[in-house]
Amino acid sequence: MRVPVCIIGAGPAGLFLGHLLSAEGIESVVLERQSPEYVRGRIRAGVLENITVGLLERLGLDARMKGEGLPHDGFNLADGERLIRIDIKELTGQEVMVYGQTEVTRDLMEACEERALQVLYEVGDVTLHDIESDRPSVTYKKGGIEHRIDCRIIVGCDGFHGPSRKAIPSDAGKEYERIYPFGWLGILADVPPCNHELIYANHERGFALASMRSNTRSRYYVDVPVNDKVEDWIDERVWDELSLRLGPEAAANITRGPSLEKSIVPLRSYVFAPMRHGSLMLCGDAAHIVPPTGAKGLNLAASDVHYAADALIRYFNQSEPDAIAGYSDRALARVWKAERFSWSLTRLMHRFLDDGPFERAMQMAELDYIATSRAAQTAIAENYVGLPV
Amino acid sequence: MRVPVCIIGAGPAGLFLGHLLSAEGIESVVLERQSPEYVRGRIRAGVLENITVGLLERLGLDARMKGEGLPHDGFNLADGERLIRIDIKELTGQEVMVYGQTEVTRDLMEACEERALQVLYEVGDVTLHDIESDRPSVTYKKGGIEHRIDCRIIVGCDGFHGPSRKAIPSDAGKEYERIYPFGWLGILADVPPCNHELIYANHERGFALASMRSNTRSRYYVDVPVNDKVEDWIDERVWDELSLRLGPEAAANITRGPSLEKSIVPLRSYVFAPMRHGSLMLCGDAAHIVPPTGAKGLNLAASDVHYAADALIRYFNQSEPDAIAGYSDRALARVWKAERFSWSLTRLMHRFLDDGPFERAMQMAELDYIATSRAAQTAIAENYVGLPV
Repeated sequence: MRVPVCIIGAGPAGLFLGHLLSAEGIESVVLERQSPEYVRGRIRAGVLENITVGLLERLGLDARMKGEGLPHDGFNLADGERLIRIDIKELTGQEVMVYGQTEVTRDLMEACEERALQVLYEVGDVTLHDIESDRPSVTYKKGGIEHRIDCRIIVGCDGFHGPSRKAIPSDAGKEYERIYPFGWLGILADVPPCNHELIYANHERGFALASMRSNTRSRYYVDVPVNDKVEDWIDERVWDELSLRLGPEAAANITRGPSLEKSIVPLRSYVFAPMRHGSLMLCGDAAHIVPPTGAKGLNLAASDVHYAADALIRYFNQSEPDAIAGYSDRALARVWKAERFSWSLTRLMHRFLDDGPFERAMQMAELDYIATSRAAQTAIAENYVGLPV
Repeated sequence: MRVPVCIIGAGPAGLFLGHLLSAEGIESVVLERQSPEYVRGRIRAGVLENITVGLLERLGLDARMKGEGLPHDGFNLADGERLIRIDIKELTGQEVMVYGQTEVTRDLMEACEERALQVLYEVGDVTLHDIESDRPSVTYKKGGIEHRIDCRIIVGCDGFHGPSRKAIPSDAGKEYERIYPFGWLGILADVPPCNHELIYANHERGFALASMRSNTRSRYYVDVPVNDKVEDWIDERVWDELSLRLGPEAAANITRGPSLEKSIVPLRSYVFAPMRHGSLMLCGDAAHIVPPTGAKGLNLAASDVHYAADALIRYFNQSEPDAIAGYSDRALARVWKAERFSWSLTRLMHRFLDDGPFERAMQMAELDYIATSRAAQTAIAENYVGLPV
């Protein structure tokens, strides 16, 4: 098979990009290791910035989001006692949209057939070839048979563990990484949320986040030691911990219910730079990971896709040979700022093992400062809704 | 001797407080371990917030500052390449005043005789007694003879190493502390400053600060390993390092000259809470230390003195028995925010031994974010000029 663009990975980044290119008449094929059911079932973040909402709008795939999504004009920080509300609408003029990544993926998947975006699921042994040339190719196995796709550009949207980034020679890029000493235990339950807005809490027992997917489905998190097992956390223990950490006001409104899903994810900050090597471009988790604090993961993938689509459209349709080369710098400028925000909000809201009383006091002083400073609240709000693209 | 208030320490905190009380007819005596010449010769910070300027104005001791001080309406952060200007006047409507602590001390000392503020210099073995009672006393030795002052309130303005804080039982307060792995090497020289505003630089070789005491006297700093000796740093080495770290624009304007003073100070964050125990109140470095980044030390002492004077005036002149008890909470609320600002600016602008490439990238991303965000610049500016009292 020969196509201009081969996209590896059919998560939201790969599907967004495939649809954006299709809309401009640029043919692509998307390769996915997992089955459609598996992809559809992955539970991820649920807060969309304008950039992500805008991509769904641009594709005309925003109908369900407009109907079912919950626009939020604020969120809350908590210090164990009070709620500090960040009025993002008043401070920035913008909102965010609570609409699960699962739903975004479903909307993008359901549009593939009608729009003739070709997605090949359950392909194995995906391997990139000749990425330093103008004629790269991708081979994969499907049903025991090896196939080959010749293309001009490969876009790696295959996440942190996918083959794309690993195809780049180690001396052609630099890794920046920070591992955190805790993970997030997430619980999904069909109960009404305890608050109509998100609450990020830094309690002396640890971090907690109250969020939701809808008015009847809640998503809660607590931080746990990174080696804890899900089995250590029966539902009641999670609910008990949430009730303590979120503070009395939120706790009074928690409705408990059986978990539909419960998992522990490690927290990591990671950037690979540059985000392009030869004919290979990286988008989303393939190039960078943020800790989930602040919900930047999906939105940052959308931002990458925005820049990548722009570069590919200019390259293929406007005959700008240098468009591809400029992709990495443009994407990274926004990536670094989102990494900084995610890292600093993580730093502010979690207990770290080597923190002493002084560091704890600094967290409380920062929350106290934020509570009284419009400038500090604006800085948080403008990062939360997403810095300008 | 019997006086209502015994002040220990004749640095700016003690002298400010003594003058403020005198102006309200409350008698005090100030005890100082060192000689007047020694006190006058101490080189310290040089940037005054409104709170400190306001105290000099309130005392009518602002004439020389108004004539010789340099009002600054901005300062700069540097990342090794560019200068990021923080326009504090435009962002906050306020200015800061560049006027050395040495000059403030001199103005306060010279007014003592005329205003009959009694300061006893070169007193030894200062010891606090019965601070948990309503009738505390202070004993000291002068000329080989022990003396005793009976008072109602003792105010400890005697710095980090003075006897006041040590007189508080260890179970009556809590210490919060952070030691930094570097010190500031300072150099004072009679040369024109390289820039009319301060420059705080984070270069990959380390931190540098270009500041001044006047248009003909410059004060520069570089960070050095905490165990370095002043003898390791001949003047030319300091100038060479400054020229590299401050970046090409500033370096082109550096005028070199022999050092009038050269010293290394360690960096420390420290808070002792509460700031009152019984009849003893603590002000300034006796209760808390900030790293010099952001120049909060003297200004925070002035803030404490503002609250302490207010409490003492209400106690003695307005018969409010609870005024003293409220001092610690009021003072600490502002102390914690200034500690936070000093710590976070130190964190942003220095190289830390255990920082890896990710942490370095976060510093650069934060500077890049500050360069483009009015909200972030405003948050820095409002802390720099001093949060509301």
